Amino acid sequence: MEIHRHFDEELSSLKEKLLFMAGLAESMIYKAVKSLAERDESLFKEVNEAEVKVNHLQIEIDELCLRLLALRQPMATDLRFITSAMKINSELERIGDLAVNIIQRAAVLIKQPQLKPLIDIPRMADLTQKMVKDSLDAFINRDVDLARLVLTRDDEVDALKDQVFRELLTFMLGDQSTIPRALELILVSRHLERIGDHATNICEDVIYLVQGKDIRHHIEEERKS
Amino acid sequence: MEIHRHFDEELSSLKEKLLFMAGLAESMIYKAVKSLAERDESLFKEVNEAEVKVNHLQIEIDELCLRLLALRQPMATDLRFITSAMKINSELERIGDLAVNIIQRAAVLIKQPQLKPLIDIPRMADLTQKMVKDSLDAFINRDVDLARLVLTRDDEVDALKDQVFRELLTFMLGDQSTIPRALELILVSRHLERIGDHATNICEDVIYLVQGKDIRHHIEEERKS
Repeated sequence: MEIHRHFDEELSSLKEKLLFMAGLAESMIYKAVKSLAERDESLFKEVNEAEVKVNHLQIEIDELCLRLLALRQPMATDLRFITSAMKINSELERIGDLAVNIIQRAAVLIKQPQLKPLIDIPRMADLTQKMVKDSLDAFINRDVDLARLVLTRDDEVDALKDQVFRELLTFMLGDQSTIPRALELILVSRHLERIGDHATNICEDVIYLVQGKDIRHHIEEERKS
Repeated sequence: MEIHRHFDEELSSLKEKLLFMAGLAESMIYKAVKSLAERDESLFKEVNEAEVKVNHLQIEIDELCLRLLALRQPMATDLRFITSAMKINSELERIGDLAVNIIQRAAVLIKQPQLKPLIDIPRMADLTQKMVKDSLDAFINRDVDLARLVLTRDDEVDALKDQVFRELLTFMLGDQSTIPRALELILVSRHLERIGDHATNICEDVIYLVQGKDIRHHIEEERKS
């Protein structure tokens, strides 16, 4: 009984840490794109500081998961939850990296005259932030419907990315002096697309976690034999 | 004794499957870039077929790892090996996805006149293929030196990517009709860069797997208490 309570506490702590990490990643996306849209260098530092925290959390969560696997030897459902948490942990860390990539592009761009006011890129940022948040909620609550909803939202992100690309191509074709800046903005949109992909990966994990009957089937078979 | 032998056999099978999957991923990179450099559509089908195999392998390996965790309840070293295998499995699957992304760009490009003979992009492909191969060898042999060597090779890949970018920018600035094709090639170089990043992730896992004293420390402490 004592051991079970302790295990549940550790699982709760794992969930809290992942949610906290996801919150950091969301704020990094928000600040990175805000620094670009509002040409505000002061946010770079905040994004970089958040990345250090995210990296520490990644190690902490990985260690917690390994401890839970080693000491508690969880079966079936909890086992899959913990291995999913390890994968999601990696996804969140990479989302943080991509936010840092965005401020690197922003640092180049805000030294030059603004090419155009940004509309679609901040929309992409809003969407991907929400995808990150919802993917974690779907994981914590084992909510397959929410996970599927996030997958459809990834199509919107891809559509916006294509729109950004076409618009910037028009700029480049119209005035070649815009090419270097347009390329930087195209890269920003690709970074955001990849953030959406990572949220999608998390949701696919959730669906597999909740509905993955194959694995349990195998385990049951082997136990019977 | 019987149980141990069985566990060792399953671990061997896990290693074999991962090596096989890595071999598939390498050949996908090779064929994708060859299809582009030699303007050979016939390779698209082979890349797509390999991706289906890679996706099946990913599920198979994931299930094998979960079974090993659930049924064998491995301690310390084996536990970390298996959770690393699960991460590496994801990395390999994404490398396959990126090879498919490259043939999508190739499909667009080979319908148009060739912009320039490709030199740096095939070099990037050679380097990243070798990174994938060596990262898996480093994992199987717990070879930290090889893992570190792969990390330095990622700097070469990044340098080539920057070179590709600068060269294509010159094309675009010189003749705006080249812009759409140059953009496609820039994206190909980014896909290859990301393949290098995935190999780098695998190597970081290897270093952490072999040298991660922190975790064992925690586990020992908790065991003592």
